[in-house]
Amino acid sequence: MDHEYWMDLCLKLASQADNRIRSNPKVGCVIIKENRIIGKGFHEVYGEAHAEVKAFANAKEDVQGGTLYVNLEPCSHYGKTPPCCEKIVEKEISKVVIAMEDPNPLVAGKGIQYLKDHGVDVVLGIRKREAENLNRIFLHYIKSGLPYVFLKGAMSLDGKIATKTGESQWISCEESRELTHSWRGEYQGILAGIGTILKDNPRLTARGNKGENPIRIILDSSLRIPLDAKILSEKGKNIIFYHHGEKEKLEALKDFENTELAAVSLKEEELHLSEVLKVLGQKGISSIFVEGGSRIFDSFFREKAADECAIFIAPLIIGGEEGISLVGGKGISRLEDSYRLKEWTAQKIGEDFLLRGRKETLCLQES
Amino acid sequence: MDHEYWMDLCLKLASQADNRIRSNPKVGCVIIKENRIIGKGFHEVYGEAHAEVKAFANAKEDVQGGTLYVNLEPCSHYGKTPPCCEKIVEKEISKVVIAMEDPNPLVAGKGIQYLKDHGVDVVLGIRKREAENLNRIFLHYIKSGLPYVFLKGAMSLDGKIATKTGESQWISCEESRELTHSWRGEYQGILAGIGTILKDNPRLTARGNKGENPIRIILDSSLRIPLDAKILSEKGKNIIFYHHGEKEKLEALKDFENTELAAVSLKEEELHLSEVLKVLGQKGISSIFVEGGSRIFDSFFREKAADECAIFIAPLIIGGEEGISLVGGKGISRLEDSYRLKEWTAQKIGEDFLLRGRKETLCLQES
Repeated sequence: MDHEYWMDLCLKLASQADNRIRSNPKVGCVIIKENRIIGKGFHEVYGEAHAEVKAFANAKEDVQGGTLYVNLEPCSHYGKTPPCCEKIVEKEISKVVIAMEDPNPLVAGKGIQYLKDHGVDVVLGIRKREAENLNRIFLHYIKSGLPYVFLKGAMSLDGKIATKTGESQWISCEESRELTHSWRGEYQGILAGIGTILKDNPRLTARGNKGENPIRIILDSSLRIPLDAKILSEKGKNIIFYHHGEKEKLEALKDFENTELAAVSLKEEELHLSEVLKVLGQKGISSIFVEGGSRIFDSFFREKAADECAIFIAPLIIGGEEGISLVGGKGISRLEDSYRLKEWTAQKIGEDFLLRGRKETLCLQES
Repeated sequence: MDHEYWMDLCLKLASQADNRIRSNPKVGCVIIKENRIIGKGFHEVYGEAHAEVKAFANAKEDVQGGTLYVNLEPCSHYGKTPPCCEKIVEKEISKVVIAMEDPNPLVAGKGIQYLKDHGVDVVLGIRKREAENLNRIFLHYIKSGLPYVFLKGAMSLDGKIATKTGESQWISCEESRELTHSWRGEYQGILAGIGTILKDNPRLTARGNKGENPIRIILDSSLRIPLDAKILSEKGKNIIFYHHGEKEKLEALKDFENTELAAVSLKEEELHLSEVLKVLGQKGISSIFVEGGSRIFDSFFREKAADECAIFIAPLIIGGEEGISLVGGKGISRLEDSYRLKEWTAQKIGEDFLLRGRKETLCLQES
């Protein structure tokens, strides 16, 4: 068993995390002695034990002299929990294998230095690319201060989300809809346009989610949301971004304890997306799941504000100039202004194909 | 080397055929002696030598006692060429391995019977499914009398073929466009709507095609085609389907020797597609390649007239309610009326994904 084998196990453990870790990274840890796992753990809840601490607590025998594998540099600072580096030295671990440095300026190499200074053998860079991919949300947020934007769509093969008479249930298959629900639970916020609220009155919850429901974020420039909208009485928090609205509506919405209002400016008659994202980042929301509808998708693509997008394509054709397109709104005029997906892939999900890609190529710095 | 190995070679040889075979099936043949190929050939031009005859002519040594592999039952009738069965018996081949029976009522088992009656050992059904797939056009035409319809589209990930200002060059990548050109040469006809002629004035030829250019088929209900349209002066034949038109235009078009006019009735204000296909079938056209545009695609999908479709998806988003959709026209109202693709697949072509499928599941009769 080599380093890669054990690091893959760390990544697998880490990937079990859901949105209860909030803006924290996904981290898994295994402790090995003589090619046997003697302890393992992953970071599960924001503010609670880190993966390393979990692995120590879970150890079935003395970890002294063992090798510890972890996909992110152990922390060296007193945050919500005491530094893992000190614990590792205290437990007399002889070797630490790490996938990637922690870009958090509070750590950023200091953890590795601390270990080395205390005589621990350190190996860095095992499965770096996979580790960066797993924590792309955390990396994006820590570097930009903005939430990572994941956009999910579902359409017919010809790009429609409903027939001309509005029939849309169901275009995508059950497996695709299930996958969508499981994804929602990984993001801190779910964003939808007021059009979707008015048309479907959805609950915007993550079915089967172990943690809290994601925060619901509604873009509603003129505060058209009805006071009996389901999301207002649903458990969990709402943030409504608006530009202007009737005074009475504004007052009435303030009575909903679960709902926060955030005024932002307009850009070409739409809510200014980069302002919206900045406010969300400042509120500590590190990731959002964009649900639609077709005008919201258009805004996110036109503004190049989607970091990643995943589109389910069902094997059917709807057609019609009046059929409703996945991406509506204003659209672009020149092809050179189009949003382009990098590193895109196709995968069969039930009867559908899932096409996904991202705005930027994953950083490929060699360590 | 087993039967499957040699039959795969036949299929590979057969697949080299282009539209010069017209409505004939694609057939390849190899003759084996002591695990060595002593002769091979494929059917290349309509009315000329069959694959078996080619293999005999090409043989490097005496074929007596050899095994002959062929992906379609050898013919037993006097058609454009004398029957291959007689030739096989005459050459004293001892075994014939066949992928599938010839559904042509003139053959349909009679070839196999003839061989058996003359003491030749016959093995049937090796790579039957692959052979049926290779000759799906021939099988469709011989059974229905209608041309096999292959529909090719290219669009952005959100189902658009042009921006709201009409910019469309190029959405798909060079590799996709090259593949499209090579496909065209495999079909007997290329069909386009008058909208495409008026907008792009294309030549509708198959670049790099070894054989004749496919016959150009234009759907032009009210004869709007301009007399200086490129296709009218291009080498090769045109068939223009129409319903009504100005007398002068009609007379002027009759002067073009390469152009045939065919009047058909209307169905819901569009040319009656099943009539069009019936006329084409009667003219001996066994396959057509549908090029577009968006209203033509809509008609073919709504009428479930596409036997197979292949759509290139480029990794970009265009958006816009006024962006032009791949499938326009009237569209469907109810999802249950949608055209559904069977056995669809996704394949990376350059930067694009090619999604393709067919109207019907391939016949899976076991032999």
